[in-house]
Amino acid sequence: MTSIKIPRQADNDYTREAAAERRRFIENNTPAILHHTSQFSFDPNILPGNIENFSGVVQMPMGFAGPLLINGEHAQGDFYVPMATTEGTLVASYNRGMGLTRAAGGITTTVVDDAMQRSPVFVFASARGAKHFDEWMRENFTAIKAAAETTTNTGKLRNIEHYFASRMLYLRFNYSTGDAAGQNMTGKATYIACQWIINNYPKKIVNYYLSGNMDTDKKHSQLNTLHSRGKRVIAEITLPRALLQEKLRTTPESLYQARKTSQLGGLMAGAVHNGVHPANGVAAVFIATGQDEANVAESHASLVFSEVTPEGDYYYSVTMPSLIVATYGGGTGLPTQRECLEAMDCYGTGKARKLAEIIAATVLCGEISLGAAVVSEEWVSSHDELGRNRP
Amino acid sequence: MTSIKIPRQADNDYTREAAAERRRFIENNTPAILHHTSQFSFDPNILPGNIENFSGVVQMPMGFAGPLLINGEHAQGDFYVPMATTEGTLVASYNRGMGLTRAAGGITTTVVDDAMQRSPVFVFASARGAKHFDEWMRENFTAIKAAAETTTNTGKLRNIEHYFASRMLYLRFNYSTGDAAGQNMTGKATYIACQWIINNYPKKIVNYYLSGNMDTDKKHSQLNTLHSRGKRVIAEITLPRALLQEKLRTTPESLYQARKTSQLGGLMAGAVHNGVHPANGVAAVFIATGQDEANVAESHASLVFSEVTPEGDYYYSVTMPSLIVATYGGGTGLPTQRECLEAMDCYGTGKARKLAEIIAATVLCGEISLGAAVVSEEWVSSHDELGRNRP
Amino acid sequence: MTSIKIPRQADNDYTREAAAERRRFIENNTPAILHHTSQFSFDPNILPGNIENFSGVVQMPMGFAGPLLINGEHAQGDFYVPMATTEGTLVASYNRGMGLTRAAGGITTTVVDDAMQRSPVFVFASARGAKHFDEWMRENFTAIKAAAETTTNTGKLRNIEHYFASRMLYLRFNYSTGDAAGQNMTGKATYIACQWIINNYPKKIVNYYLSGNMDTDKKHSQLNTLHSRGKRVIAEITLPRALLQEKLRTTPESLYQARKTSQLGGLMAGAVHNGVHPANGVAAVFIATGQDEANVAESHASLVFSEVTPEGDYYYSVTMPSLIVATYGGGTGLPTQRECLEAMDCYGTGKARKLAEIIAATVLCGEISLGAAVVSEEWVSSHDELGRNRP
Amino acid sequence: MTSIKIPRQADNDYTREAAAERRRFIENNTPAILHHTSQFSFDPNILPGNIENFSGVVQMPMGFAGPLLINGEHAQGDFYVPMATTEGTLVASYNRGMGLTRAAGGITTTVVDDAMQRSPVFVFASARGAKHFDEWMRENFTAIKAAAETTTNTGKLRNIEHYFASRMLYLRFNYSTGDAAGQNMTGKATYIACQWIINNYPKKIVNYYLSGNMDTDKKHSQLNTLHSRGKRVIAEITLPRALLQEKLRTTPESLYQARKTSQLGGLMAGAVHNGVHPANGVAAVFIATGQDEANVAESHASLVFSEVTPEGDYYYSVTMPSLIVATYGGGTGLPTQRECLEAMDCYGTGKARKLAEIIAATVLCGEISLGAAVVSEEWVSSHDELGRNRP
Repeated sequence: MTSIKIPRQADNDYTREAAAERRRFIENNTPAILHHTSQFSFDPNILPGNIENFSGVVQMPMGFAGPLLINGEHAQGDFYVPMATTEGTLVASYNRGMGLTRAAGGITTTVVDDAMQRSPVFVFASARGAKHFDEWMRENFTAIKAAAETTTNTGKLRNIEHYFASRMLYLRFNYSTGDAAGQNMTGKATYIACQWIINNYPKKIVNYYLSGNMDTDKKHSQLNTLHSRGKRVIAEITLPRALLQEKLRTTPESLYQARKTSQLGGLMAGAVHNGVHPANGVAAVFIATGQDEANVAESHASLVFSEVTPEGDYYYSVTMPSLIVATYGGGTGLPTQRECLEAMDCYGTGKARKLAEIIAATVLCGEISLGAAVVSEEWVSSHDELGRNRP
Repeated sequence: MTSIKIPRQADNDYTREAAAERRRFIENNTPAILHHTSQFSFDPNILPGNIENFSGVVQMPMGFAGPLLINGEHAQGDFYVPMATTEGTLVASYNRGMGLTRAAGGITTTVVDDAMQRSPVFVFASARGAKHFDEWMRENFTAIKAAAETTTNTGKLRNIEHYFASRMLYLRFNYSTGDAAGQNMTGKATYIACQWIINNYPKKIVNYYLSGNMDTDKKHSQLNTLHSRGKRVIAEITLPRALLQEKLRTTPESLYQARKTSQLGGLMAGAVHNGVHPANGVAAVFIATGQDEANVAESHASLVFSEVTPEGDYYYSVTMPSLIVATYGGGTGLPTQRECLEAMDCYGTGKARKLAEIIAATVLCGEISLGAAVVSEEWVSSHDELGRNRP
Repeated sequence: MTSIKIPRQADNDYTREAAAERRRFIENNTPAILHHTSQFSFDPNILPGNIENFSGVVQMPMGFAGPLLINGEHAQGDFYVPMATTEGTLVASYNRGMGLTRAAGGITTTVVDDAMQRSPVFVFASARGAKHFDEWMRENFTAIKAAAETTTNTGKLRNIEHYFASRMLYLRFNYSTGDAAGQNMTGKATYIACQWIINNYPKKIVNYYLSGNMDTDKKHSQLNTLHSRGKRVIAEITLPRALLQEKLRTTPESLYQARKTSQLGGLMAGAVHNGVHPANGVAAVFIATGQDEANVAESHASLVFSEVTPEGDYYYSVTMPSLIVATYGGGTGLPTQRECLEAMDCYGTGKARKLAEIIAATVLCGEISLGAAVVSEEWVSSHDELGRNRP
Repeated sequence: MTSIKIPRQADNDYTREAAAERRRFIENNTPAILHHTSQFSFDPNILPGNIENFSGVVQMPMGFAGPLLINGEHAQGDFYVPMATTEGTLVASYNRGMGLTRAAGGITTTVVDDAMQRSPVFVFASARGAKHFDEWMRENFTAIKAAAETTTNTGKLRNIEHYFASRMLYLRFNYSTGDAAGQNMTGKATYIACQWIINNYPKKIVNYYLSGNMDTDKKHSQLNTLHSRGKRVIAEITLPRALLQEKLRTTPESLYQARKTSQLGGLMAGAVHNGVHPANGVAAVFIATGQDEANVAESHASLVFSEVTPEGDYYYSVTMPSLIVATYGGGTGLPTQRECLEAMDCYGTGKARKLAEIIAATVLCGEISLGAAVVSEEWVSSHDELGRNRP
């Protein structure tokens, strides 16, 4: 069996012919007939930088949920949110939450932090070496920042976190990255900064890696929940009691009671966040809008805080500490993905925080909707079954 | 602005016309022109159960990586793995790992557990009530199992885990689910089981929820790492020293050294697993093959264990404790997704564990490939820069 | 400088003279005058098994808190709880909580689990080897149990948990251990069980360690919170609204509000449990009663669940999943420690669960007392300062 | 049954008579005869600030381990470490490790951070309020620092960390606290700072608590591992291969292999740190030297990093991120505790970092000693049993 030759990006083989040839190879070597996969509507010449071995497309069904009413710092008004999914009830569930929150006057969103990281690590002969290096790094921040920023027009090195362990100093470079997600930009800038460091540090460095894993790329971490990776966005709403009773046939107390019980279960299980299913909304919008779909691992992190207000209404908030979104670069310019962004007026520069607010608001709608579904299930069962008088 | 009407699944509006009408609505109300989104090659009549408000498709570029050589219990031989992504270098990186592992004789995979969960919680007046209920549940397992299994031909209730906290008893029903992912099957079966419980338990139950969150659906948890959710698959290989030197211009010692340093960084950061980027491979294959893309949150969990062998080679293993995969049902039957499954001969019954093995092997290839990239970056820098004699 | 010679336990040097000689050595080699340290009231001959290099005593101040009213399964009535501490306000704070809970009718305690662990790990050539071993272990449980129990009259091997990772099978042997903490008993029994396994397993075992760390001895783990280590005890109470207002000048709502806010802070910080300061009560009683003081690391784990009841009272519960306590063996027989146990009628066989209930109830009192202190601080500040009308 | 009356600290009842009366009360109401508990050698008049309801002492056996050779920044030379414990083998095990590390030239220790926290939380009507407050706090740091420092001569407010969640801003005030542990000092200073904030912030604050739990007092947290609580100390050594073979009859490779396997087990279990039993050493020295014994919960955190060096020796390091120690104040001035401190020349001002270094070095000795014990157990079993030729 012959291997598919990996095309180098320099090669001009992002053509329909190259893709067809690859599909023929697969068809000749496997049971598959790649008919639908071959049906794409764009010129594959646009794909360098997005994929290698391009062979066709996966057609992922997409539906709009909305209108989603947001009173954001960046997103204001009604939005129709494109969600790409194959999981039945997902769009309907988010849609129901959007209807409810719109009836309650819309969701308030606030962006409180925004940074992308690369975290090199430097190894020394002993912790003393790391300690000396730590001081030198603090003294030379301005020069390091200058070196890093030679590589980018938009990226700015905001600050560097320092973490000691053993004979290493782990660093975490925080950049503002404009409207790009910024993983590559920060990688390159940090690489150059590290070159500067290596060239200028007057003492011995035993070893160095461009990533010491404290950026925790592509995986959830407590550190990202604390210090954010991407946008930190808070979505909030107060749902009137009467509205909950009318639309969801439930009460703030019932919803809150269910959340509390669920939260204790999650805590005991060692769940990484106290939301219910933010991953559903995040994944569906990420795929629709050309975000890096693996960042769901980081971006689904959430901190839910809700309460029955003194007035008897239901305050609900979702804090998303690590929402990694872009409105240009990466997959955002691909034709269908760009169309989905444009449906929210979120394509191009100046839109990343707006998109982050829309996603956080979307997640909130899904949390409330599923929460209510769990409770109404309780309602059925408890009224039919639990209400009987038992000894 | 008018809201889009959510179609009920019973409505017969999974038509091209309905989708076009929805797109027109979006085009009329937003800046978007939904041209590419409208280009799909299948009859939308197949979509009930997969999406609501269907409006078109997202075309996600797909490339094959491979051949991936596996010596599995279920997957045996060479495979071409479809990966849907918009992230440049992803396919190339996995492909490189596949070439390396194939040259080393292929990856051994083993499925050691397989279950899907639903975790109801029962609330009592006090912990004493929960304690009594716990005993009754153990005594009545056979009847509860029978009740649950009335709802499904393929699902089997294997066991129930019991967790006490406060005045609640949290339960975790574990089912074997054949080749379906099984979230819905287990939900329905557990619902009926709970009805049986409520009808037959002779004492007072204060409240009950179908999910107490100890299934930790759509989020990572330590519990799932311990007791698995979906398939628990282990992928292993021993990479000969000479091969690493020839193909990656590095040594087992350098790779291992980098991993150790990275692992300490992840531990300090509170990262949820000690892999590097399993989420990349999992997400790309999940999207290509119609898996529930939000399950990346659970399924990217991994436990990496590697070592330099006494012979000087490099043993590398990835344990994936919560790989949730299906080969029928859900999105697997959609045209492009089914084609991608068929390219691995993984469509239909009897194939789920095979698919799980392929994904775990794929993840291993990506871990090694990125690990080597980090090290060769080290190589560049350390040879150019660190080699200078410093005081 | 000469080293102190470590006495072997067989040596008969647990004498006042040997201790004096060691103190003289320290006095000759350091600035210390060891006057008070030399003042102990017992014959050091009792110390083999408790300490080596015995040189004197630390006199830790001890005070009683109480009466603590408990409606337990094992502890019933009023108790005076000995607390050894050097931290001012600790005893007073627990005492205040005890007064409050007694006025509310006492604390209900329930023991829902009880086991001690040793967790060996077996290493194989590959995961396949671990998988075969897993099956063999399940088939041979009865014989393994018999082998383990040859070493102990009181320890019973209840079950073995199996955890796969890489080419290892991690096991977790769960024993009931009567009224001893059981760490040594389970170590010895598991050692013999492992010998039996090694002698009887027909295939190749590459390596084995008596502890693979899944007992997580002397450190907190999610696994212990899930499956318990030592006693799992739940303490509960409902505090009448009027009582809170009268005694603490606060309301259920204020206490609950503070807890919620604190709980979110702890979650964001990655705190290992959602209590406030169970370690204070656990450490003080552990030291007073001769428990292994390092087990505070495991035993301070707690799951707090509280709520304002529909009647407006305050339900509060503390679940302690890993309370490791003994009423004979270890340090429990030392003179002062035994006296402290006897003050609760907790010395000797048949008392371990009683002691566990008392400690859990004590912890609950401390949680409520500190929670109220935080709130009254709020009360002061918010009434004095926050009440002003601000724009 | 009559309650013991809690003495207020102002009351002059820290007398032998008051203690005797309390003991009589216990003897009259319980089975206990409090003979040994009554034997203390100091005037209880010294106890206000250390305990309430003083009734006697617990005599905790104490032995010295050592000499422990340290090449620290603050601790230099040989030390005899007082350990108070009732757990047999503990002192012997640490002592063995001290002998080994001394033969290897001693342990290098480095203090890389030092701070104590109090973490108030401010609640607003919405996240927008928190965002405005965040900016104001940054602008007014100098004034806030000045307000905080009016309350203390030694405490200095170093920096404030800001964490957003929901409509709250959680703050974490970091102070240097000289040679005191500083929990009370920081509480008081932060209280005054918060008063200043409340009086000067021009907008509405809905609520405020002096602790929002992000100091994670008396419990382990990832945040403390990241940002330290108390001293962050690193202890390191390189153990020559020949020494390990001679003294422990083992090799660097065997020790490392065991650690790796154990570390994976701990990771899978969700253990909070990757050490083996630092809690043993920390608890024993804390009790001997009058530290707050409940801080074992935070202070036993550790990050172990070890490796076989290219030369075939064994590098071993322990990073303790949250070592909370004092050399004056709290329990350090009690007679026996002070004597124990003086035996290390660690009593009084200017000694806290020295003590921290000694404890970290002690912990390292215990980790190596227990690690070797596990391996030699392996040695016995594997040589006797595993060596047989099996199919």
